[in-house]
Amino acid sequence: MLPEWIYRQCPEISAIHREAAIARQAQLTKPTGALGRLEQLAIELAGLQATDQPRAARVPIIVFAGDHGIVAQGVSAYPQEVTIAMMANFAGGGAAISVLARELGSSLEVVDAGTLAQEAMAGIVTDKPRHGTRDFSVEAALTPAELAFAFEAGQRAVARAEAGKPDLLIFGEMGIGNTTTSAAIAASLLGISAGEIAGSGTGVDAAGRARKAHVIDAAIGRHGVAGASPEKILCAVGGLEIAAISGAIIAAAQRRIPVLIDGFIVSVAGLATVRLNPSCQPFLLPSHQSAEQGHRLVLRALNAQPLISLDLRLGEGSGAAIALPLVRLACSLHNGMATFAQANVPDRPS
Amino acid sequence: MLPEWIYRQCPEISAIHREAAIARQAQLTKPTGALGRLEQLAIELAGLQATDQPRAARVPIIVFAGDHGIVAQGVSAYPQEVTIAMMANFAGGGAAISVLARELGSSLEVVDAGTLAQEAMAGIVTDKPRHGTRDFSVEAALTPAELAFAFEAGQRAVARAEAGKPDLLIFGEMGIGNTTTSAAIAASLLGISAGEIAGSGTGVDAAGRARKAHVIDAAIGRHGVAGASPEKILCAVGGLEIAAISGAIIAAAQRRIPVLIDGFIVSVAGLATVRLNPSCQPFLLPSHQSAEQGHRLVLRALNAQPLISLDLRLGEGSGAAIALPLVRLACSLHNGMATFAQANVPDRPS
Repeated sequence: MLPEWIYRQCPEISAIHREAAIARQAQLTKPTGALGRLEQLAIELAGLQATDQPRAARVPIIVFAGDHGIVAQGVSAYPQEVTIAMMANFAGGGAAISVLARELGSSLEVVDAGTLAQEAMAGIVTDKPRHGTRDFSVEAALTPAELAFAFEAGQRAVARAEAGKPDLLIFGEMGIGNTTTSAAIAASLLGISAGEIAGSGTGVDAAGRARKAHVIDAAIGRHGVAGASPEKILCAVGGLEIAAISGAIIAAAQRRIPVLIDGFIVSVAGLATVRLNPSCQPFLLPSHQSAEQGHRLVLRALNAQPLISLDLRLGEGSGAAIALPLVRLACSLHNGMATFAQANVPDRPS
Repeated sequence: MLPEWIYRQCPEISAIHREAAIARQAQLTKPTGALGRLEQLAIELAGLQATDQPRAARVPIIVFAGDHGIVAQGVSAYPQEVTIAMMANFAGGGAAISVLARELGSSLEVVDAGTLAQEAMAGIVTDKPRHGTRDFSVEAALTPAELAFAFEAGQRAVARAEAGKPDLLIFGEMGIGNTTTSAAIAASLLGISAGEIAGSGTGVDAAGRARKAHVIDAAIGRHGVAGASPEKILCAVGGLEIAAISGAIIAAAQRRIPVLIDGFIVSVAGLATVRLNPSCQPFLLPSHQSAEQGHRLVLRALNAQPLISLDLRLGEGSGAAIALPLVRLACSLHNGMATFAQANVPDRPS
């Protein structure tokens, strides 16, 4: 149903570079394993990037925004106009992800992948097939053609970023209602009830969560998408920014660019991506465990262990951005430490 | 028993700045609480630093090294000469903490607080009362005068760092055998058996751990220091670099400089410090949960929740250095984000 490129194989992990990185870690002036997860991360990156010097220096951030017809059912704590206002805040430099991009030296591109904005906005790339999704409690959120357009919007964003020779990519999202959409996608993909996965989003209370779960379960039943194909699920209950992220992940992985995966919503996009094209999976690097209830289930389905767990629940790509310095330090340690021989330090007796 | 300054009160947390930081966090363009632990950290730092703009820009790293007579009992996986070789590696730029200091823009000072080195070494401050501690399995590790000297060596290091107006300080340690010393101090302070707290250090196996625990329990019994005063415990089973760190923590806290606490050994120094002078406690900011078995117990005794848990077990201050970017981003977000009013973003209906 989706364009043919989406199903194309991603490159293989370079076993030679991975093995060389393992050997190097054992020679650095520290007990083997003493840098824990950071050693694993450097080794993994060396294999993914097919290099002796894994890098996380150039890491563009791309935030995709979209609106969601399902907000008509009262599933969000914030009014829908916040999506557009926050896009302007991203571009204006005042949002969390704007501050983080500045601090990290990352470029920040904001893509309107499907908000209700009627006109082009300053500093924002408009690339959308329609203004917001349809209310999936009454009809399918997207047509197949709209879904395909969103995947290609993601691919186009990666193609733009490619010129800067990125070492990694971070994708973020903004869209009032998109934790509901994400929970609907995840519940459908995993074949579980929404009660297990729907969280408080930007801050609905227990009654709000119950309402979200009810709306989602009813929609999954109406569309008959429990355990269905990712294509069918994304049309029935998907979101434009989520589909764009899914397309962007595939496009990045096909170019051998690992993606530092943000929180609940980006992880759900990642899960849909891996179901569409399993060869992408190694290129998804988890960043954080968010406070959103369903994130743990989605990470488990991705077999991904996050680097940090700081009760973040903001989205925008902020969790991945906050974890980026750890990836950078893992690379610096791998590339910059002396070996036992170089430093003339006695190793442990073997 | 120790010099009078050690018991002097640290400054109070500034309630005014803490309250102002809480109020500011609620106005930033994000759901309140969505930045989780990073919000708490910025609020805490604002109160500790007594400022509207918490900072973690200038963060000198000071590594204290010492040797341990207890290694005669075969408690370490590495030979004792590694302590001196690694001091040279710190100064030469090849160690993990050297790489981290460069990446973070931190100065790195290495203090020989009590190694076996017989001569001054290039790039290292020598400030020690003796060459290594005595073997605490047969006699007290330190005399009261030697212990006092080590505390003052820590104070002198902080006084040197003070000229650069540090926002925070990181203290690290190096000393073959010092997980055994630290486990002995912690077991004595907490009144528990060594089996609960002695870990694998740089890499001893299960038999090595059992040996460590046996040596420690016997020494605690011989010296009669289970539940004794910190002064008595530090003389009986202490270490010179550990006492220097304890003195440095007190000196920093008395100057209103928070300390980002590294792993097991520095946390044990922190626990001894808080027992000596409880007014220091708020200035101890935990950084990471190490893979060393006893660290969890020590952090619990400090009522401290670490920021990261990456199976690190290297020491040198490396865990605190790795966590520093998270503290920096917490400050940048607090200081740099727009408020709802500034960005003209609708807040949730109140």
